[in-house]
Amino acid sequence: MDRGRLEAFSDGVFAVAITLLALNLTIAGPGHGTLAHQIGQHWPGYLAYLISFFTIGIIWVNHHSLVSNVAEVTRLLLFLNLVLLLFVVLVPVATGTVADYLGHGGFDAKLAVALYGVVLFGMSVGFGCIAEWSLKAGRTLAPVPPDRRWTARLRFMAGGVVYLAIIGLAFISAPGALGLSGLVALYYVFERTPAVGRAPGSQDADA
Amino acid sequence: MDRGRLEAFSDGVFAVAITLLALNLTIAGPGHGTLAHQIGQHWPGYLAYLISFFTIGIIWVNHHSLVSNVAEVTRLLLFLNLVLLLFVVLVPVATGTVADYLGHGGFDAKLAVALYGVVLFGMSVGFGCIAEWSLKAGRTLAPVPPDRRWTARLRFMAGGVVYLAIIGLAFISAPGALGLSGLVALYYVFERTPAVGRAPGSQDADA
Amino acid sequence: MDRGRLEAFSDGVFAVAITLLALNLTIAGPGHGTLAHQIGQHWPGYLAYLISFFTIGIIWVNHHSLVSNVAEVTRLLLFLNLVLLLFVVLVPVATGTVADYLGHGGFDAKLAVALYGVVLFGMSVGFGCIAEWSLKAGRTLAPVPPDRRWTARLRFMAGGVVYLAIIGLAFISAPGALGLSGLVALYYVFERTPAVGRAPGSQDADA
Amino acid sequence: MDRGRLEAFSDGVFAVAITLLALNLTIAGPGHGTLAHQIGQHWPGYLAYLISFFTIGIIWVNHHSLVSNVAEVTRLLLFLNLVLLLFVVLVPVATGTVADYLGHGGFDAKLAVALYGVVLFGMSVGFGCIAEWSLKAGRTLAPVPPDRRWTARLRFMAGGVVYLAIIGLAFISAPGALGLSGLVALYYVFERTPAVGRAPGSQDADA
Repeated sequence: MDRGRLEAFSDGVFAVAITLLALNLTIAGPGHGTLAHQIGQHWPGYLAYLISFFTIGIIWVNHHSLVSNVAEVTRLLLFLNLVLLLFVVLVPVATGTVADYLGHGGFDAKLAVALYGVVLFGMSVGFGCIAEWSLKAGRTLAPVPPDRRWTARLRFMAGGVVYLAIIGLAFISAPGALGLSGLVALYYVFERTPAVGRAPGSQDADA
Repeated sequence: MDRGRLEAFSDGVFAVAITLLALNLTIAGPGHGTLAHQIGQHWPGYLAYLISFFTIGIIWVNHHSLVSNVAEVTRLLLFLNLVLLLFVVLVPVATGTVADYLGHGGFDAKLAVALYGVVLFGMSVGFGCIAEWSLKAGRTLAPVPPDRRWTARLRFMAGGVVYLAIIGLAFISAPGALGLSGLVALYYVFERTPAVGRAPGSQDADA
Repeated sequence: MDRGRLEAFSDGVFAVAITLLALNLTIAGPGHGTLAHQIGQHWPGYLAYLISFFTIGIIWVNHHSLVSNVAEVTRLLLFLNLVLLLFVVLVPVATGTVADYLGHGGFDAKLAVALYGVVLFGMSVGFGCIAEWSLKAGRTLAPVPPDRRWTARLRFMAGGVVYLAIIGLAFISAPGALGLSGLVALYYVFERTPAVGRAPGSQDADA
Repeated sequence: MDRGRLEAFSDGVFAVAITLLALNLTIAGPGHGTLAHQIGQHWPGYLAYLISFFTIGIIWVNHHSLVSNVAEVTRLLLFLNLVLLLFVVLVPVATGTVADYLGHGGFDAKLAVALYGVVLFGMSVGFGCIAEWSLKAGRTLAPVPPDRRWTARLRFMAGGVVYLAIIGLAFISAPGALGLSGLVALYYVFERTPAVGRAPGSQDADA
């Protein structure tokens, strides 16, 4: 399989998932209080939408960086990619659950954010598996030198560790844990993508 | 990143968003009055559907014109593109809110159209950011000459100004403001796309 | 604009619309009678699903034949294509309305099938506009000779005429009109696609 | 038609179907018991989601192997592909029905799993038709030698036979039949894709 179709399928899944996110913001319609009141109560939904949108967006950007450097698409890579997508498509549902429960507070709000953290953690693990796969010699066009592999690993594992912390933090403070996941997204928007699997001299993902 | 994957992902999002628009027209089914009556009451939905469909369609056409001229896809461009898509995926929800509230009149109808204007304005700003980005020397295959940059800017900023006016106008007349957004779409259907970032001699988007 | 992105966007819309069709078949869940009973009452939904699926499928097959022969994608073609897609995305909603109302009989069933006919007719007109556009000299890689243009026109207009008849027939017999739209789909599955815009010697769409 | 557009359309349908699967996991929201309770009751949904996700994923992987080897895309192949997709888009609905009914037990749970088996069987038949089509001389870049055709046939027919058994088994044990469909998916994750239509020396789908 060439990279083209792996990318096309993944892009399709990313595109559908990112668009379905917005459906969580649907207003119930007349007969459920004034529109202004409904929108006011929806604030956790808007916040969760923003965080999830940019989280998926960033994963998409980094997914491309990784895949564009792959020398040969193997069956194993396809299944690792499916593991990543398994969690990507769960993001709209997990975001909707946060939107529904965060405003109500209590244990349900905490559990909703913890589940959101589980989905983001799963996505991070799926991405990490692809990155780990790509470290082995001969699998990428521009291999990561052996002495820099642990640095690379630390970089793509960092997100996973933070998401793991978010799962625990959710039970102490649901808004705090959600805010932290927003900071992770914000960090990756302004930070450079990890250099894992970047071709030397490649400028393709730099501002 | 090559243009191909940026386009594939964006096309996916545009395609899903434009298809989800139609779901707002779903009929409630037997037990909610006669079908003719339900359809008669749905008129704001059909109007809003038409306007949103062609608005997204036009943004898609112009998005391609811009992106096909990009010399190199950078990380910054990817995130500007995400800002555009952030608002594109909100169009189905905002259209559905207009469809639900316009027929009921009152402040809710005005607020619904104003929110619709906010989403279209955001989309316009997102597009303007990409266009502005493309003006800097070396970023496009066919650069806009420095003395024509302000003309180009005025052209892609005009839509944003009208959408800003629509947000205010909505609080005076909701149907009037919605109609004006329809005129913007109609204008761009019959008018040529702004020449920002068009390769000289390129005929690719002319009739 | 090259053909690639016109095709990618259209394929996205076709793919989403054809997948959303199946959502009309969603079962209401426990508490609405036995599952067997619910499925038994859904028969108009299954029939309408089958007809719509193959109708969209055929339009997709013929859309490709036409577009693959286009010499240059112009702005006018993009907007004619949007008109086609405007009706394609309405098919899931129109199919759902038929599924909901056909079993109830009466005027609502007739109106539902008539509306379904309107959407298929609109799709046919949109397709016919693209085909008509392609007949003008210089617009296709393999032009249709002037003396064969009326034959070509008759072929792509035939479907529209039948769909127009279906709209009228719906008010006499809703199941009969739905059945006729199924026969149109069946006819095009087994018949060759019209030769409009086919490159000479091209075998690409033949069995 | 070149392979590119057949793949793009199919990938779009696979991507939308696999993403819609997750919507079955949507939580009803506050007022339907605690979140923990709702999630606990959703277990058949999570199980069915996992099985369906990997089943569609595997069909997608094998679909690519087959199509990438096709010498010429014919009209017949396009319609065989539509038959496959007809069942692919039914998977989310069938999965949702299993999720809704499995926990309730009784005949409805058995019928839900049997219907799920029917959809997977249909998908398997659709795939088998494409594989059978590809066996005829001249249709693939790397033809299967005549003496190995029956071996190839047995391999791609095996899945269909198991799915047929699942339909029957569902009426004896619904969870057992669902579990067996999970084992089929698991088997294909770890097993190599059938060699039907693989180019000699091709490594593209191997780990």
